[in-house]
Amino acid sequence: MLTAAYVGNRTIELQSARAVPPGRGQVRIHVAFVGLCGTDLHIVHGSMDRRVKVPLIVGHEMSGTIEEVGGGVDGWATGDKVTVMPLVWDGTCPACKAGNTHICQNLNFVGIDSPGALQPFWNVPASTLVRVPQHTGLRDAALIEPVAVAVHDVRRGRVAAGDKVVVVGGGPIGLLIATVAKHVGGDVTVVELDPSRRTRAAELGLAALHPQELDDPAWLENWTGGAGADVVFEVSGAAAGIALAIAQAKVRGTIVVVGIHPEPRGVDLQRIFWRELTLVGARVYEKSDFEAAVELISSGVIPTRALITRVVTLAETQAGLDDLEAGTAMKVLVDVRAGQPDEDASW
Amino acid sequence: MLTAAYVGNRTIELQSARAVPPGRGQVRIHVAFVGLCGTDLHIVHGSMDRRVKVPLIVGHEMSGTIEEVGGGVDGWATGDKVTVMPLVWDGTCPACKAGNTHICQNLNFVGIDSPGALQPFWNVPASTLVRVPQHTGLRDAALIEPVAVAVHDVRRGRVAAGDKVVVVGGGPIGLLIATVAKHVGGDVTVVELDPSRRTRAAELGLAALHPQELDDPAWLENWTGGAGADVVFEVSGAAAGIALAIAQAKVRGTIVVVGIHPEPRGVDLQRIFWRELTLVGARVYEKSDFEAAVELISSGVIPTRALITRVVTLAETQAGLDDLEAGTAMKVLVDVRAGQPDEDASW
Repeated sequence: MLTAAYVGNRTIELQSARAVPPGRGQVRIHVAFVGLCGTDLHIVHGSMDRRVKVPLIVGHEMSGTIEEVGGGVDGWATGDKVTVMPLVWDGTCPACKAGNTHICQNLNFVGIDSPGALQPFWNVPASTLVRVPQHTGLRDAALIEPVAVAVHDVRRGRVAAGDKVVVVGGGPIGLLIATVAKHVGGDVTVVELDPSRRTRAAELGLAALHPQELDDPAWLENWTGGAGADVVFEVSGAAAGIALAIAQAKVRGTIVVVGIHPEPRGVDLQRIFWRELTLVGARVYEKSDFEAAVELISSGVIPTRALITRVVTLAETQAGLDDLEAGTAMKVLVDVRAGQPDEDASW
Repeated sequence: MLTAAYVGNRTIELQSARAVPPGRGQVRIHVAFVGLCGTDLHIVHGSMDRRVKVPLIVGHEMSGTIEEVGGGVDGWATGDKVTVMPLVWDGTCPACKAGNTHICQNLNFVGIDSPGALQPFWNVPASTLVRVPQHTGLRDAALIEPVAVAVHDVRRGRVAAGDKVVVVGGGPIGLLIATVAKHVGGDVTVVELDPSRRTRAAELGLAALHPQELDDPAWLENWTGGAGADVVFEVSGAAAGIALAIAQAKVRGTIVVVGIHPEPRGVDLQRIFWRELTLVGARVYEKSDFEAAVELISSGVIPTRALITRVVTLAETQAGLDDLEAGTAMKVLVDVRAGQPDEDASW
């Protein structure tokens, strides 16, 4: 089989590998589609070289069907449609013992810390499997993981029906957060510098503004009756993004930190004090978030057709990452079965 | 009567004034003791000149007895021991309508935005009164307001029995927070640069460390089994204080922002994201916090004798503020009845 591996030096390489049978407690998945994500881009850029061991088969947003069930695995059968929650925790650290296994202090994030999904036959622990309904398309199912991120973020922000919600940053995760927040009844505005991303947000039925428009106090006054936003999601990772988020939140409002901020940011703690704001971090997801994401995808709440801007073959993985980097793509999928030497690529 | 007023130019002036009868909805309090606080110091330094109108009679931590009840006031009688929750809200702004009257968007903080307690006969709206049990001493009762701050902070931090709690900053509010957090079952460590403040904390039965001691990962590892602190209170107002607070918190831990940070601080948002931390602002108090503070003072939980380091006359108000500024005092009270021209100063 062919796999796509990061080999260092900003390079993704197609490598031949031999599929092996699943070990005890594992299943072998026949991988269908893998979504490329910002983290994959970070890996290929070398930003995570201290963490990853090369060669690393990347990919952690995926869909597929069970191809073989290893020993000691109950409840799963060949042909089952699945996705993977790519977290393996140690179960013994203080975070795990406190019930926060998803942010285990020694977390193995599959696709970063261990081999990912850009391989047609992928062995994973059965504990990571999440069931996908048989009527759900495998392209759509590859979006379950990023939707689970959005569900987790919206839950961390405790968005309630009628809440005024601002999402700072209109990339793939920002638009998924906006979509999920809207689905639970939020009145959502996306803030995004890039006009093409604002257009895409509008196409998805989301209000989208340039940050300068939001900076006008009259706008917030008019939209929220002078209160400010109930919940603001900081998804931009920019210094200006967190400043905007804190400025927009109402008294006792919530700011959810979703974006990656590689260095400390100047934060107006006086405003946090004065308005009794709450700033919460939100990272990855819990199993319940994944289950909710399956439901959102399967029931058609998530506009997957509009979000998937391109599907490439495994050999075109680098081109897909280039699209992502250029900011022109929303979600690029790799069709892992296409172009494999001796496997059926149909789905 | 003599009052102590800020008149601008870093000056507190003793001024003669005529006591007036209470208006409708008001009571006239015969003020006994007034605590001096960091906010009073800020006012006299001129840092709040854009907000205050001079001359301003300062003082908002106080005790006294009702001297006269105005028209339309029920439930209060001459001789009742009282303190004042010095907040008057408009009841119409979005924060008030959402139930957060204590941080009304147009809050009148009595003693800053309207005349305070450094006057022997003080008229206040009956709505601000908080009952003090007859057996509680008036010196002790003057500490109810800062204890209410501490109660509010501890409640915002949701401190629970058994929690590992760090208080960054060992001034008066820091030590009150530590005392209240300990009372609800927290295992509390105070972090303070100043050795005399650490000594005072130790005298109050609180563990107190130099920040460098806490910086040693082995210390936190040993104290919390590698988890980190459940709740950290940032009371120092220093850039290093918030950095320390964020570094000490466990996965899903809480940092409460209590200290005043006059400028934006470099905040490690990546850590907030990675550990799913919660950062909450905590400002002033609600009526329920005041009621809890009355109970804590009246039942002797708060070591008022050890906290009150000096009692001065109204004429010595400036000397009291100087003590505060030098950092040598914990709580300085002004005995407002002492030295008044023709009033009884006994209590």
